[in-house]
Amino acid sequence: MRQTLDFLLHHWLDVEGLCQRPRFAEHSAETFGAVLDTCQKIAEQKFAPFNRLVDTEEPSFDGERVTLPRATHEALAAYVQSGMLAAAQDHEQGGMQLPCTVEMAGNAFFSKASVSMGGYAMLTSGNASLLMAHGTETQKRVFAQNEFAGRWFGTMCLSEPQAGSSLSDVATRAVPDGSDFESDPLGPRYRLKGNKMWISGGEHEITENIIHLVLAKIPGEDGKLPAGVRGISLFIVPKKLVDTEGRLSGERNDVALAGLNHKLGYRGTTNTLLNFGEGKFRPGGQAGGGLDGAGSGAVGYRVGKPGEGLRCMFHMMNEARIGVGLGAVMLGYAGYEASLEYAKQRPQGRPMSAAGKDPGSPQVPLIEHADIKRMLLAQKAYVEGGLALALYCARLVDEQQTGEPEAAREAALLLEMLTPIAKSWPSEWCLEANSLAIQVHGGYGYTRDFPVEQYWRDNRLNMIHEGTHGIQGLDLLGRKVVMDGGAGLQLLASRVNATILRAGQVEGLAEHAGALAQALARLGGATKSAWASASPQDALANATPYLQAFGHVVLAWIWLELALAADGAERDGAVDANFAAGKRGAARYFFRYELPKIDAWLGVVAARDATCRDLSVEAF
Amino acid sequence: MRQTLDFLLHHWLDVEGLCQRPRFAEHSAETFGAVLDTCQKIAEQKFAPFNRLVDTEEPSFDGERVTLPRATHEALAAYVQSGMLAAAQDHEQGGMQLPCTVEMAGNAFFSKASVSMGGYAMLTSGNASLLMAHGTETQKRVFAQNEFAGRWFGTMCLSEPQAGSSLSDVATRAVPDGSDFESDPLGPRYRLKGNKMWISGGEHEITENIIHLVLAKIPGEDGKLPAGVRGISLFIVPKKLVDTEGRLSGERNDVALAGLNHKLGYRGTTNTLLNFGEGKFRPGGQAGGGLDGAGSGAVGYRVGKPGEGLRCMFHMMNEARIGVGLGAVMLGYAGYEASLEYAKQRPQGRPMSAAGKDPGSPQVPLIEHADIKRMLLAQKAYVEGGLALALYCARLVDEQQTGEPEAAREAALLLEMLTPIAKSWPSEWCLEANSLAIQVHGGYGYTRDFPVEQYWRDNRLNMIHEGTHGIQGLDLLGRKVVMDGGAGLQLLASRVNATILRAGQVEGLAEHAGALAQALARLGGATKSAWASASPQDALANATPYLQAFGHVVLAWIWLELALAADGAERDGAVDANFAAGKRGAARYFFRYELPKIDAWLGVVAARDATCRDLSVEAF
Repeated sequence: MRQTLDFLLHHWLDVEGLCQRPRFAEHSAETFGAVLDTCQKIAEQKFAPFNRLVDTEEPSFDGERVTLPRATHEALAAYVQSGMLAAAQDHEQGGMQLPCTVEMAGNAFFSKASVSMGGYAMLTSGNASLLMAHGTETQKRVFAQNEFAGRWFGTMCLSEPQAGSSLSDVATRAVPDGSDFESDPLGPRYRLKGNKMWISGGEHEITENIIHLVLAKIPGEDGKLPAGVRGISLFIVPKKLVDTEGRLSGERNDVALAGLNHKLGYRGTTNTLLNFGEGKFRPGGQAGGGLDGAGSGAVGYRVGKPGEGLRCMFHMMNEARIGVGLGAVMLGYAGYEASLEYAKQRPQGRPMSAAGKDPGSPQVPLIEHADIKRMLLAQKAYVEGGLALALYCARLVDEQQTGEPEAAREAALLLEMLTPIAKSWPSEWCLEANSLAIQVHGGYGYTRDFPVEQYWRDNRLNMIHEGTHGIQGLDLLGRKVVMDGGAGLQLLASRVNATILRAGQVEGLAEHAGALAQALARLGGATKSAWASASPQDALANATPYLQAFGHVVLAWIWLELALAADGAERDGAVDANFAAGKRGAARYFFRYELPKIDAWLGVVAARDATCRDLSVEAF
Repeated sequence: MRQTLDFLLHHWLDVEGLCQRPRFAEHSAETFGAVLDTCQKIAEQKFAPFNRLVDTEEPSFDGERVTLPRATHEALAAYVQSGMLAAAQDHEQGGMQLPCTVEMAGNAFFSKASVSMGGYAMLTSGNASLLMAHGTETQKRVFAQNEFAGRWFGTMCLSEPQAGSSLSDVATRAVPDGSDFESDPLGPRYRLKGNKMWISGGEHEITENIIHLVLAKIPGEDGKLPAGVRGISLFIVPKKLVDTEGRLSGERNDVALAGLNHKLGYRGTTNTLLNFGEGKFRPGGQAGGGLDGAGSGAVGYRVGKPGEGLRCMFHMMNEARIGVGLGAVMLGYAGYEASLEYAKQRPQGRPMSAAGKDPGSPQVPLIEHADIKRMLLAQKAYVEGGLALALYCARLVDEQQTGEPEAAREAALLLEMLTPIAKSWPSEWCLEANSLAIQVHGGYGYTRDFPVEQYWRDNRLNMIHEGTHGIQGLDLLGRKVVMDGGAGLQLLASRVNATILRAGQVEGLAEHAGALAQALARLGGATKSAWASASPQDALANATPYLQAFGHVVLAWIWLELALAADGAERDGAVDANFAAGKRGAARYFFRYELPKIDAWLGVVAARDATCRDLSVEAF
């Protein structure tokens, strides 16, 4: 993987080029390389060896404490030690001021080694980044800085038991805490009551405190919660109360663990149901107490303005979505490497030859069989393509933050377009890669003696959390492709066309360039047809097949880019012929075996096929 | 499900018609219904409630005994009691003389309730059926009859640790046991030594004895094992030795459990590594002993002629493959029912309307969302289509066994063609159905509090055992479509064309008929193109995509059949409008959303695309 990572960073995304910019001026290819070396080493030593352990010894709760394997504590201590939590933060804040692209490349090692142990760090870094963007100076100093330092970890609390994906139905209530609520130095102080479901990292004793970012609604004058997502605000709710110097006050906030979820996979990350303000703890010494005997609520400090909670949270969600995509990719990558290794060493059968098979000859390694090669090449195309997409998105973040104004604006727009793909595509196809990795192993792959079944289980989460597949489709077709009169789609198309033009001149790639041009036209046509009746019901009935097709077109574009980059790197002597042949082979696989799948998906989109939505409930 | 099952049996496959035949003359729609009632009741009472239990309490081995949950013993006792083990056997043998179609319909309930507990019964019935076809009268009486009676259970022992799918590399050795080896009343007696891997039901204490059917090679005069599959013979190797009256002799045969496999799913069936003749037990009191200290071998009785082992075993394998397909279908069905139920009762969000969403309105059940309907309808199309295919194959077995000679010959040929599809298609698409069932549940589906994650894990086995997906593809494209000059493919095409002709006359189905005609032509063309160079390497490099496309064409045909049958049943007043609309909706889904996928698969087949097989090992 490291060679592919270096190829993507240096021979495709030109991360050295970023060092020309003032923010990254102290960096160089060497410092980037050193970061990756460190990440790789810690991941291999502290994470990978315990990935099975955190699956078999899932978090347990005795009613008082949550117990995790010691390995999780030690792995995360090593992660904190590496400074990666604050990798992208300013030097003056104790950060490394690394480009997001390099930060993501470094984190790839942890996701590959143990995606679920890495989860705590990703959440913490995302949580603190949100506060850096939307918090007050005190909130940044007290909460974000202690998270970046690894003293405290963070969570994001969106879902509720009665309203999973439907955030407009959030029922957690936040009321001003006293008449002086606005004068608290940590931010406007509220009391929160409600239940939050699916909270990853919601309880543990890895760190001395946990900083929850909680979506809740502030009741109106009539005491009712405002309807819809516009009534949602965002609050910092620490597990333990702290003062303005970041010292624990000794008082426990009223955040209580109601239970752990027992999952199919991803078990290294605790996943919790949290009760806020049910009265188990009494912060502020208040007896509290409505008729329900509940306390007066968990103390929370508002971040940003009332009603802007979702907008603030989306800062974290977008990052989290790309992070989920990267996690899915790296699970796929881990399975690819395991099955490639297995296929090279396991003798099994004989390939078909014109003369049939000679049973007297020795068995050959699995990889000599065409169908095994197909399954390996499919995995390679999925996981290397997915990794490239994730890093491309990270590179857009860097451009957005440090590029010239026009380039930054375009990067932001492209990022909006690509986020649903960066999240959904690996969740679907790198899960398929994991299934192929099992298949390559045969019966052994179905046993817990080999790692691939766990990768497959872990990966199944990724189509669900941080916005389900269906929601990504609605976001893409219902919002992203139509925003600003389709400006995002046009911009993406212009980038794709630029690649097509370049590849059209290159022997061996012109065929792919032509196929991509056709696919892009087909996608554009289907987008128009979907919206031809200007009815969201019509257009969005097939938003998921649209998402799938869109993703495959984006990945075809990425693979054409990589094939061009591989040609260049080979010409420069930066990679050898086998490496370049592998990239070209995966690109060819993608164009021959994968891209043609879009026709079936786009067919129903373009026809605004109503077969599914028109079927009555009684007919099922 | 019961209504769909009745529809398939009575309004599509006309099982009552079978009662005209002498073999089934004592049966009627009523007796068939009573069998299904019984199966449904036992499955719901004794199997379904314990399906999670057999997953969490997987088989354990303390070095002496294998322990299974009590529920498994009780469920199988009830199964034995029902007489279903011998459902298709002659009355005079204690059987019910049921059509295979009805037997399979009855077994569907068990597979849905707990596929892994049902596994013991399927293996036992298949094992005994093989002996009825290939055993001597004594072997039938002693072994098969005691298996049908449920006194003993059976296994099939093919794979070995060093040769999973590659049966020509079987290294288990069988040598004649003394000069009088041919005079044993239980069959020619051999001593076997070797290791067998992945043996389901290989050890347990549910029954007093276990009858292993073992593939092994008889060494030639040079002491070497013959190369290739033609050197394989078949042996009955009982765990405990028995006399000609079926009484246990009190002597333990040398079949030793080397270990249990710890699987991703399907945990209710023990899966074992068995050592034959390693010397742990000394049947016949022989000290045995080469230099390795091993015993003289496990006692085995040959079935059929030397070298005909694989041909005999395929009798069981073909049945087992359809059984695997049915198991995959029923796991899909269980997930479909669970997610349909969940989607109907769980309120979540609001559907998009022309006016947007009104957050003040109450949430609607999940099933009101178009994308949820899409996921449910896809599941319905996969699982009901898969069930229809399995029953169609069973109906072919009945035709083969009781039809007029020409019809029987055709049924046998069609069955050969359809077996790889009946095994592979549900393994792939009903697994996808299980993934969709998880997705419909959202985060809850990823927890072990809901059953769908287990279905998905259980189902992942089905693409692996009884011939992997890749092997089914080689069987189909390398053997089945070319045998007898393509006679099987022609016959299948003529059946499909007959359906197309009928449907072409029917309003609402003519569009599908046209699409199926095109698909069939495309499939035929791709088959010819694949073999155009007459090179197996060229043709078979894309055997798996071919298998996928072939499967989708077959299922489209099945769905057109079902749509026609639903029309008829509705006209006859046998089903209501909702039921018929559901079948038509699933058919339309299949034609609009699924059938178009074949183009991408057949594209590489027709082009004899060599992208995968040509890539060098070093380029991965």
